[in-house]
Amino acid sequence: MKRTPKHKPPGPDTIDAFVRIVGASHAIRDEAEMAPYLVEWRDRYRGKAALVLKPGDASEVSSILKLANETMTAIVPQGGNTGLVGGQIPFESGHEVVISLERLTHVRDIDLASNTMTVEAGLTLAQAQAVAASAGRLFPLSLASEGSAQIGGVLATNAGGTAVLAYGSARELALGLEVVLAGGEVWNGLKSLRKDNSGYDLKDLIVGSEGTLGIITAAVLRLFPKVAEKVTCMAGLDALETAPAFFARALERAGPALTAFEILPRIGVEFVLRHGQGTRDPFPSPHQWYALFELTSPRDDALLAPLAEFLLARGIEAGEIADAIVATSLSQSEALWRLRELMSEVQKEEGGSIKHDIAVPVASVPEFVARANRLVELMIPGARPVPFGHLGDGNIHYNVSQPPGMERAVFLANWEALNAAVHEIVLDLGGSISAEHGIGRLKRDLLPHAKQKIALDIMRKIKAAFDPNNILNPGKLL
Amino acid sequence: MKRTPKHKPPGPDTIDAFVRIVGASHAIRDEAEMAPYLVEWRDRYRGKAALVLKPGDASEVSSILKLANETMTAIVPQGGNTGLVGGQIPFESGHEVVISLERLTHVRDIDLASNTMTVEAGLTLAQAQAVAASAGRLFPLSLASEGSAQIGGVLATNAGGTAVLAYGSARELALGLEVVLAGGEVWNGLKSLRKDNSGYDLKDLIVGSEGTLGIITAAVLRLFPKVAEKVTCMAGLDALETAPAFFARALERAGPALTAFEILPRIGVEFVLRHGQGTRDPFPSPHQWYALFELTSPRDDALLAPLAEFLLARGIEAGEIADAIVATSLSQSEALWRLRELMSEVQKEEGGSIKHDIAVPVASVPEFVARANRLVELMIPGARPVPFGHLGDGNIHYNVSQPPGMERAVFLANWEALNAAVHEIVLDLGGSISAEHGIGRLKRDLLPHAKQKIALDIMRKIKAAFDPNNILNPGKLL
Repeated sequence: MKRTPKHKPPGPDTIDAFVRIVGASHAIRDEAEMAPYLVEWRDRYRGKAALVLKPGDASEVSSILKLANETMTAIVPQGGNTGLVGGQIPFESGHEVVISLERLTHVRDIDLASNTMTVEAGLTLAQAQAVAASAGRLFPLSLASEGSAQIGGVLATNAGGTAVLAYGSARELALGLEVVLAGGEVWNGLKSLRKDNSGYDLKDLIVGSEGTLGIITAAVLRLFPKVAEKVTCMAGLDALETAPAFFARALERAGPALTAFEILPRIGVEFVLRHGQGTRDPFPSPHQWYALFELTSPRDDALLAPLAEFLLARGIEAGEIADAIVATSLSQSEALWRLRELMSEVQKEEGGSIKHDIAVPVASVPEFVARANRLVELMIPGARPVPFGHLGDGNIHYNVSQPPGMERAVFLANWEALNAAVHEIVLDLGGSISAEHGIGRLKRDLLPHAKQKIALDIMRKIKAAFDPNNILNPGKLL
Repeated sequence: MKRTPKHKPPGPDTIDAFVRIVGASHAIRDEAEMAPYLVEWRDRYRGKAALVLKPGDASEVSSILKLANETMTAIVPQGGNTGLVGGQIPFESGHEVVISLERLTHVRDIDLASNTMTVEAGLTLAQAQAVAASAGRLFPLSLASEGSAQIGGVLATNAGGTAVLAYGSARELALGLEVVLAGGEVWNGLKSLRKDNSGYDLKDLIVGSEGTLGIITAAVLRLFPKVAEKVTCMAGLDALETAPAFFARALERAGPALTAFEILPRIGVEFVLRHGQGTRDPFPSPHQWYALFELTSPRDDALLAPLAEFLLARGIEAGEIADAIVATSLSQSEALWRLRELMSEVQKEEGGSIKHDIAVPVASVPEFVARANRLVELMIPGARPVPFGHLGDGNIHYNVSQPPGMERAVFLANWEALNAAVHEIVLDLGGSISAEHGIGRLKRDLLPHAKQKIALDIMRKIKAAFDPNNILNPGKLL
């Protein structure tokens, strides 16, 4: 399979024809005005585009793709531009056309008996949550970037977050999709069914395909009962090794009431205490690790606090945890969550940070961290690993802060070598080199090493079946 | 796309070569011995085969497919032979080779911290449930045929059952697969990860593909906490119209504790009372409809009965239900479930039955039943609809018993015409013509009418990408 995209730069007539589809007021040709669509928010990727188009509905997206397919114009679909792997940013050629879905913001339907809502791709995740809440329901997907991230992008990247443990990732939360395919055909897969065994599962194939198989224009999303009671707990652990057993204990007893289970290392908490405003050490004495977990219920029958206390008492008895807190007020709960939420941000204050978004089986998390930490010390003595994240999903953000005093650029020069070595451990443990963030541009060249050849072959054939002219987000993912 | 399979009848040398792969003692060439593999259990489909092969591991399955692909031999994968749409039965040509996965029964791994088990395709569903139970966990998928149905077939058909409401169907319960592809390549997708965004979702594409894209040889399955407390309830309803509101009420309050929600019509209950041994009318006076639902919890804290009573009291107040029972003993619970479990079987005693396995959005179930019932009365006056099943999934088994006294064959001659008319209503309501059972042979020719052309086109391209010689279960599904 050739990697060279077949696409061509759009000529002036083609550009005019694209503009006519959406109307001049919804097309951006000016380079300065295009800028916000061409830079990734952390400024890690910068590209150029021939044009930014803001279609108003699926039918305009269809006309754009039909023309793009006929003229071999490469298309970069973009949602809220919050992606972390560069999938939403065009390359530097300036030949690509960015399609922003931001104007597709209708809520098409809410069905309370079926517990579904049908929303368009440009609605932000926070708006979708608000729509659900105003209908007395919960849309559980929640991410740091939810104020900007759009439903289309969330689905195209199969976004995760802290509620995957109980509710699943974006894929599991979407029952149906409306998708514009490469030739401009609109696939109406907007089913709101829990059971549909009438043919291949195109929905799940398109979710997570990062805009390379089609452009999602609307989705049927699952709704859940509102949370009426919530208890946040934190446990202090002497070692990470006992965390999976304590997690398994909590899950066994709490079942679906266990809606989040995160881990934080002492060094990360210290970073937060050092740089995060108004934060304080959760326990009188420090612990090597912290487990932050949450129990929720659709009923307000005050049963979660006793359940939490039972779990924590048993965990202490079993030697799995050393100390524990049950937040008794909303502000105490928020203070505990703040330690977790600031964990990414405060790492900037400690200099350069080399990041990994990986998953391994839950039981293998301690082994992964131990092996990766040893490796870091060998490769970059003095570098400070800050592994944290979603233990309940085996999804660890294995971030490594630079040794104090080292030149930032010198440290960051190790990025690719460290990634490669850490990914070896991940693959050895049956893990994934991209748990949540996707492949995009960042990890495209790592994929052939991480995936079995036959899996990549099949993926390439699927891509060719959907998009024979390779106009959809070429050079991303595959 | 040509429908004519490209496959050829295997000659004597090819047959010998197939036999050598598995060894003579695991190959059946004798027609009489092959018989159990060639007949569907209800005797609705009968076929012929050149050979039945019982490979002992994935590597033998690989060798078989490699040879089949080279010799253009058509392959029919078979699990427990419990399918309801003929997908597992060869055609009448006698040119196909049946591969039974029955010898692949190893439990490769159980990981309690990660809550997963890795099992081979030939394990029966009941055995898989037992493996989980003996490890102190629940594997929630449950079906009438679980004693014979095998994990491979369960996944190949994305089986559902009564626990989909809380736990999802087979697709949602499998985290990873090992699959032998048409060319004999073994795709090792046995990941036990909740989060993996490293490329297209091949796992979900293969689940539900009915043996047309590859042969599943092993799977990583999700485990859940054991059920410690269970309460079964039945409500009597004056009309189906109020059932979705009562279901929504129950779900809103009980959340994930609501693990089943079924509906039964009065006529079905009467059939059960007439033909089912030791059954009795659940309420002092009859109701038009019955809702049978179950609350479960991983804790035995006696909270479910009060919750059930609360839900039922509110349902009565709101006029959604007319009367209610909370089973206070295991035998009472079993008696209620027996009314549901006998519902299929007793229909045989009432003469011919024309069946539909459909899903519509939950909110549309009453409209579907009303429209379908009117249609039945117009098309076959006196015929008796017995719609029952998984209201919580919008999945209704719309079965129609013949008018009393009509010639069975005369009634059954309406099968296709009635199916077609009922499916029109289903499609009009945004539903699916196959909710649980799949497409197989039974519904293959209905698919072009039920699916959008672009969806079928994409499905055919995917099939060609996976299986260019069309050797895998040709003539099924697509």
